[in-house]
Amino acid sequence: MSTSAAAAEVVITGSDQVIVIGVAVVALIALVIAFVLRAGVLAAGTGTPKMQEISAAVQEGAAAYLARQFRTLGIFVVIVFVLLFALPATTTGERIGRSIAFLFGAAFSASIGYFGMWLATRANVRVAAAANGDGGREKAMQIGFRTGGAVGLATTGLGLLGASIVVLVYVGDAPKVLEGFGFGAAMLAMFMRVGGGIFTKAADVGADLVGKVEQGIPEDDPRNAATIADNVGDNVGDCAGMAADLFESYAVTLVASLILGSAAFGTKGLVFPLIIPTIGVITAIIGIYITKAKPGEPGLVTINRSFYISAAISAGLSAVASFVYLPTNFADLGIDSVRDVSGNPALMAIISVLIGIVLAAVILWLTGYFTGTETKPTKDVAKASLTGAATVVLGGISVGFESAVYTALVIAGAVYGAFLLSTTLIVALFMIALAGCGLLTTVGVIVAMDTFGPVSDNAQGVAEMSGEVSEEGAKILTELDAVGNTTKAITKGIAIATAVLAATALFGSYSDAITGALISAGDAAGLAAGSLSSFVTSVVSPGTLVGMLLGACVVFLFSGLAINAVSRAAGAVVYEVRRQFREIPGIMEGTNKPEYGKVVDIVTRDSLRELATPGLLAVFAPIAVGFGLGVGPLAGYLAGTIATGTLMAVFLANSGGAWDNAKKIVEDGTHGGKGSPAHEATVIGDTVGDPFKDTAGPAINPLLKVMNLVALLIAPAIVALSVGDSASAGIRYGISALAVVIIVTAVVVSKRRESSLHADQPQATA
Amino acid sequence: MSTSAAAAEVVITGSDQVIVIGVAVVALIALVIAFVLRAGVLAAGTGTPKMQEISAAVQEGAAAYLARQFRTLGIFVVIVFVLLFALPATTTGERIGRSIAFLFGAAFSASIGYFGMWLATRANVRVAAAANGDGGREKAMQIGFRTGGAVGLATTGLGLLGASIVVLVYVGDAPKVLEGFGFGAAMLAMFMRVGGGIFTKAADVGADLVGKVEQGIPEDDPRNAATIADNVGDNVGDCAGMAADLFESYAVTLVASLILGSAAFGTKGLVFPLIIPTIGVITAIIGIYITKAKPGEPGLVTINRSFYISAAISAGLSAVASFVYLPTNFADLGIDSVRDVSGNPALMAIISVLIGIVLAAVILWLTGYFTGTETKPTKDVAKASLTGAATVVLGGISVGFESAVYTALVIAGAVYGAFLLSTTLIVALFMIALAGCGLLTTVGVIVAMDTFGPVSDNAQGVAEMSGEVSEEGAKILTELDAVGNTTKAITKGIAIATAVLAATALFGSYSDAITGALISAGDAAGLAAGSLSSFVTSVVSPGTLVGMLLGACVVFLFSGLAINAVSRAAGAVVYEVRRQFREIPGIMEGTNKPEYGKVVDIVTRDSLRELATPGLLAVFAPIAVGFGLGVGPLAGYLAGTIATGTLMAVFLANSGGAWDNAKKIVEDGTHGGKGSPAHEATVIGDTVGDPFKDTAGPAINPLLKVMNLVALLIAPAIVALSVGDSASAGIRYGISALAVVIIVTAVVVSKRRESSLHADQPQATA
Repeated sequence: MSTSAAAAEVVITGSDQVIVIGVAVVALIALVIAFVLRAGVLAAGTGTPKMQEISAAVQEGAAAYLARQFRTLGIFVVIVFVLLFALPATTTGERIGRSIAFLFGAAFSASIGYFGMWLATRANVRVAAAANGDGGREKAMQIGFRTGGAVGLATTGLGLLGASIVVLVYVGDAPKVLEGFGFGAAMLAMFMRVGGGIFTKAADVGADLVGKVEQGIPEDDPRNAATIADNVGDNVGDCAGMAADLFESYAVTLVASLILGSAAFGTKGLVFPLIIPTIGVITAIIGIYITKAKPGEPGLVTINRSFYISAAISAGLSAVASFVYLPTNFADLGIDSVRDVSGNPALMAIISVLIGIVLAAVILWLTGYFTGTETKPTKDVAKASLTGAATVVLGGISVGFESAVYTALVIAGAVYGAFLLSTTLIVALFMIALAGCGLLTTVGVIVAMDTFGPVSDNAQGVAEMSGEVSEEGAKILTELDAVGNTTKAITKGIAIATAVLAATALFGSYSDAITGALISAGDAAGLAAGSLSSFVTSVVSPGTLVGMLLGACVVFLFSGLAINAVSRAAGAVVYEVRRQFREIPGIMEGTNKPEYGKVVDIVTRDSLRELATPGLLAVFAPIAVGFGLGVGPLAGYLAGTIATGTLMAVFLANSGGAWDNAKKIVEDGTHGGKGSPAHEATVIGDTVGDPFKDTAGPAINPLLKVMNLVALLIAPAIVALSVGDSASAGIRYGISALAVVIIVTAVVVSKRRESSLHADQPQATA
Repeated sequence: MSTSAAAAEVVITGSDQVIVIGVAVVALIALVIAFVLRAGVLAAGTGTPKMQEISAAVQEGAAAYLARQFRTLGIFVVIVFVLLFALPATTTGERIGRSIAFLFGAAFSASIGYFGMWLATRANVRVAAAANGDGGREKAMQIGFRTGGAVGLATTGLGLLGASIVVLVYVGDAPKVLEGFGFGAAMLAMFMRVGGGIFTKAADVGADLVGKVEQGIPEDDPRNAATIADNVGDNVGDCAGMAADLFESYAVTLVASLILGSAAFGTKGLVFPLIIPTIGVITAIIGIYITKAKPGEPGLVTINRSFYISAAISAGLSAVASFVYLPTNFADLGIDSVRDVSGNPALMAIISVLIGIVLAAVILWLTGYFTGTETKPTKDVAKASLTGAATVVLGGISVGFESAVYTALVIAGAVYGAFLLSTTLIVALFMIALAGCGLLTTVGVIVAMDTFGPVSDNAQGVAEMSGEVSEEGAKILTELDAVGNTTKAITKGIAIATAVLAATALFGSYSDAITGALISAGDAAGLAAGSLSSFVTSVVSPGTLVGMLLGACVVFLFSGLAINAVSRAAGAVVYEVRRQFREIPGIMEGTNKPEYGKVVDIVTRDSLRELATPGLLAVFAPIAVGFGLGVGPLAGYLAGTIATGTLMAVFLANSGGAWDNAKKIVEDGTHGGKGSPAHEATVIGDTVGDPFKDTAGPAINPLLKVMNLVALLIAPAIVALSVGDSASAGIRYGISALAVVIIVTAVVVSKRRESSLHADQPQATA
């Protein structure tokens, strides 16, 4: 199996060209509709002047944060651009294309994140106003969901547009160029997830520790200097970070499908993976427009219905597309390498796509079951509050472990199911990638669902701070916020599923890259390249096993670093809010306003500083392992990150979601309600869960993709240096040592920033 | 590489025979010294009649639990014995030997556990009496450490005796027979770890929830009906479970070394792995006798000194043994398969052994750093109590993640270092196994250190309950208890390191078993068996990756099940203690005694019921994966369990240790001392950590070994059924389906036992 051999046979002419142009047109239409939805959201009533004032402060803080973040990340992007340009490539065109595509991937990812944040910070006040009588619950839900819809269509539209243009321009070289595109998108998304995640939870935890715990004032109380920062956080973390993350999931899954598709199915394999997500875009538009809250129906039921309807339409249309576009036997594909493969390509393809769609639906159901306010697991966690905080924490951890296992089993089943469709490895790998495309058809609706979370959370914040929302309005907003907690957890489950499918599929490309490099390096060892490549990657080799152990280490280290970063940054918030209470008279009496901007500045500075260590770890760890130990241990390393990362990501997301909603259950009056010991116990659980579910957990998804793509990009260089003379061995170990030094320095520096949360300092009150 | 080919060359005659007999004699001497130490412990003063009464109650409860546990496990042992007998074997002698060895392994493991528990329940009152004036702190420490010494020498003596007898009787077939021995030891140890772990923490958590939280009475208060059960738990969990666990670590590491040693080095490879642990036994005797507490010196310093001195002596003696016994070039080994290997076998061997010894020392240091009361990480966790329980929990989780990463990196470094010693795979694998033997030299002292923990914990319990211990005595016992927390964490780190080294080495045997079976099955596919075996186990194959994901799942599921089991069983304790407070008048006033035995009965029943699910999972999951998906995914599965399991085990052990000692720091008067909000926060952290560090975490070590050995035993059967006709495919999938049904049923049954902790029930007080 070799993509380069197959690539030569790939040409896009006639009807294929028309289809790809059609894909680009649909992508443009999606962008137009996103613009229309945006206009609809902006047209809604904006509430009282006080609400508008608060919303404006949040907008300003969020925009300032993103602007500073992009400046910081710009330096990173330039460095990686240069490094990428220096890496080996088959042709100069490929080299230039890959580097330029990297820039586009990063820029698109950033734009999507910015757009998501921009719209969400404008939607919050409109949802609050609607809930407060300006249209009621139905209108509030519609604004929230259409905000998400605009972001979802922008995500899928941009992803599809980028991919289709690259395919039209580069044709057979498109997969190689798209590696750069995917890498740019994933790298930027990872940084945005980490930075935004630290921001949002540092502000949230810090605000809670001083406000709720020390001063006994409610969440979002305007006397708390950290409240604006807390609301800014929802937008830069859950909106900007999440939108960028799902964009990269989209991009990387497409990249994997196109690489493997062109190798397995030739031209048709390059076009078909574009058709399926195009269907997804169309059904997402339908799903967004049919979402209409019915009176008395729980919000989650409404949203789930839209998901299931659009998934069903996607399944139907994909089946039609498969049988119309793909032949029913391999000989008709017209490429030599798979001429004799048995089976029906059209049937295989549609089964794979269906596996992906069903996978999304099952994860949706599983996550809803484990983290929803109406189901047994979360209720059990809430009930555990009767025996104190320790049992709440243990209960949430159990829910997290258990749901992670079921989710991983379902994902493993999907991978294995697609894999079994063909005994020819390259075809089987393509089927796994197509299952990923099936998942992608749901991304538009998923983004819409996810964005719902921070928008309704923020709407509640704006309402609370303004003090101008009716009891009825407050109740609506609380319900929508709980729905948002579950939809956020669902999105994380889907995102990690795309990571596993894309990474498993990319693994095939990695193997191919090793083999190809071994052939071209003309290895003198006398071994056939193929057998050598399977030997070095044998899982029973101690080298591979060591690589796996290192992979598992990186997932744990990354999670620990992210959680620590939140603790440290939250400490700075606590310090500042206490200072303001002490030094600015009249805050508690409401006669004087705290300096909200000061806290936003501090969190901005700290989260940008803190994102460096986990970010550097993600980029340099595979470089250290690959150049230091070789391609076999690097393969083991990637596998170790996928296996451990999948479980860890779902565990962190779902335990956090369960704790958050267990708190909501108690706040709704169960087990003693607000202010009871049970409430205090669930607040502790929720605080533990904050960095789990919104910082460490969701960042693992782009982490896996970044590391996989880095491995794919450096594999040929490692092989070239491995088979060379002692000078090249020196270069290899030198690169590895440099990467290790960078990682160790980053970890040591971050550890030296003594957690100010733990520093001895005066409390605001005696 | 094929062990069967090499086995033919193995004969034990002349000086080799003398050496193996010498090993057996040293093993017997160790057992005699264990008996002498035991007599010394029993000769110490037994304190006041009240203390004796309490100690007798603990002895009775512990003995009753173990008796019932052995009856339950007896059924399991018989079933597995039959299954083992039915599995394919090369010769009938091997078949019978393997099954009999399984019984011996199980019996030895059980005996060691029983002995550890028996002596510890007698040492507790003697340590309490010594601390209370009958000899003072030095005497108290000596009794505690010599109790451990007796258990440690019994562990190493029995392990060595079993292995040397098998080698003398079976010679070349010894490795195959020893697989059964190791499996028996590991299986029983796993059940004892899980059952004892559930018992100890159910009683502990249950006692704390009603006593400390609801009634506000101190730990070990005689008015609490669960106190005796709590003290029984320390013995059946930390003593019996731990001793059995370290015995199986010993046995399995020896098995791996002997399998690979005979394949790589012939006869000398079968004898040398016996020599190194024999040196360890000798130095352990020295270490135990030189341990003498100096006035004013922290307990941990005293114990660590003994460890370092005996490790240094072991290193020196091992170097001498290597150069005296092993030749300096491979040709002189006299076996054909490695005649042309370059390098110096004696030098390689001593480097490997040193790697193992250094690894033990580094883990000792790392764990002490992360969980000790005098070092920064634990102090930081204690300081986090100033901002509440949530930050304590997050702080402990960070410490756990971080220390797990460093520990895993050190283990990975040791594996890779040993692996790099030779480019010949079988030799490299043997070197990894020898690093394991280096670790083993420290086991005698490690067991002594570990047993120190529960004995001092229990001594404190006996003292507290009797109410007859002076303030000075209580202070001594509290200090010793804190030392015990750290030594327990260290032991867990060492145990998991042996698991990784043994499992990595066993992996080589697994690969060998696949290849051998493929050859003998005469695979008609036309592929060379070797290349096929590396293909099916290639880490980039989706099948292998799915196996890895399943392996990671099992680690998470097992941990979740164990934690849940503790919650459920603790709920039953809470219920019963509340009932007694309600129905037996005068308990709180001290005019009437609670029914301690009732609680012991309940915990005994529940923990034996609860151990079934995780136990069945461990045995049947590899069967389900192996027969269902094949040998490649099974290899991936094992690798996944090792990578994830290592990190998870250390994470759970060290975060639990840090929380426990953070509580101790606060109880010593820091941050407000006992009764302050900071204390309450650290009590919550400690309760979360209880099932982490004493139930789920330590059971992962035997879990990994059980699954590896099951895989090794079933591999030939899987291959035989894989290359057969459709009938054999039917049998294969049938076996897999049956295993899945057993696991699912076990999980469903355990989930249907609604957590009584969460059930609505009347509280003892309004």
